[in-house]
Amino acid sequence: MESKLQLLRKHVRTFPDFPKPGIQFRDICPILKSPPALTAAIDLFEEQVRTIHPQVDLIVGLDARGFLFGPLLAQRLGIGFVPVRKRGKLPGTTVTAAYDLEYGKAELEIQEDAVSPAQKIVLIDDLLATGGTLCAACELLLRLKAQVLGCLVLIELKDLRGAERLKPHTVFSLLQY
Amino acid sequence: MESKLQLLRKHVRTFPDFPKPGIQFRDICPILKSPPALTAAIDLFEEQVRTIHPQVDLIVGLDARGFLFGPLLAQRLGIGFVPVRKRGKLPGTTVTAAYDLEYGKAELEIQEDAVSPAQKIVLIDDLLATGGTLCAACELLLRLKAQVLGCLVLIELKDLRGAERLKPHTVFSLLQY
Repeated sequence: MESKLQLLRKHVRTFPDFPKPGIQFRDICPILKSPPALTAAIDLFEEQVRTIHPQVDLIVGLDARGFLFGPLLAQRLGIGFVPVRKRGKLPGTTVTAAYDLEYGKAELEIQEDAVSPAQKIVLIDDLLATGGTLCAACELLLRLKAQVLGCLVLIELKDLRGAERLKPHTVFSLLQY
Repeated sequence: MESKLQLLRKHVRTFPDFPKPGIQFRDICPILKSPPALTAAIDLFEEQVRTIHPQVDLIVGLDARGFLFGPLLAQRLGIGFVPVRKRGKLPGTTVTAAYDLEYGKAELEIQEDAVSPAQKIVLIDDLLATGGTLCAACELLLRLKAQVLGCLVLIELKDLRGAERLKPHTVFSLLQY
């Protein structure tokens, strides 16, 4: 486990002042480009889900970087993947939840028939910052009467306290900064 | 092969008049939700690449729905995945190419150090319509002096003649409408 985490950490690059001054951007592109590092990330997510949430029915991933890991994890677990998208991208009947951006709001959507009542869901995204988008995704799932077992992220920015905002939902992160 | 394609076709839903009147939207969400259908899609992509482009070095996928399939295919092939993103999302030095939207233009970006000169690339996206975004992605790769071996898409909308626009690059599609 430790060596998989070390491998992952070596494949995260930090860019200061992106997308604006004062922000340290954690770039996961080197993980995607390295087959062993990407395998390690999915191994660790899979182990967490099989240990803590073995009853999971579906993996739900967030637009766009949750799409990079969600289908890989779902295939490993032999279960389905459902996307949560930015508003206006999904056809059919959808439910919508707003989340705050720095200036103004944005909205996330899920197809109403994507998840059945009482289905057990694990959410995945690349990064937990303030938790706004994952909170909105949890709200969508609760409105569909699904059960959120927990959230997975590759990287957690601890100072921004997203995990507190997400309570009572739990977050498991592979790397913390 | 035929039965995998039949399985895939059964998992595409058509929504008339989305996102606007006259458009038949092909929804791939049921494929993502069905482990055998998603496995079949990746099987068919893998077979195509191993047969036609065995020398491939990297899979490059387009924001956002190319992210759903690209890392799965790259892992199958044991090679790396590189994302092409909408402008403003990638840190570091990037190259940018514009493509036409119905009203105005948008831009795609790739990190300059993501691809080395002469590396052999297979591009992947979910759908080929007019080919504007895949053309822009090919332009990015050519500017990095990479070699585009070909493009893969799950669905090709034949009437929109995207394959002609992409020439001399070739497109392999699993389903045609």
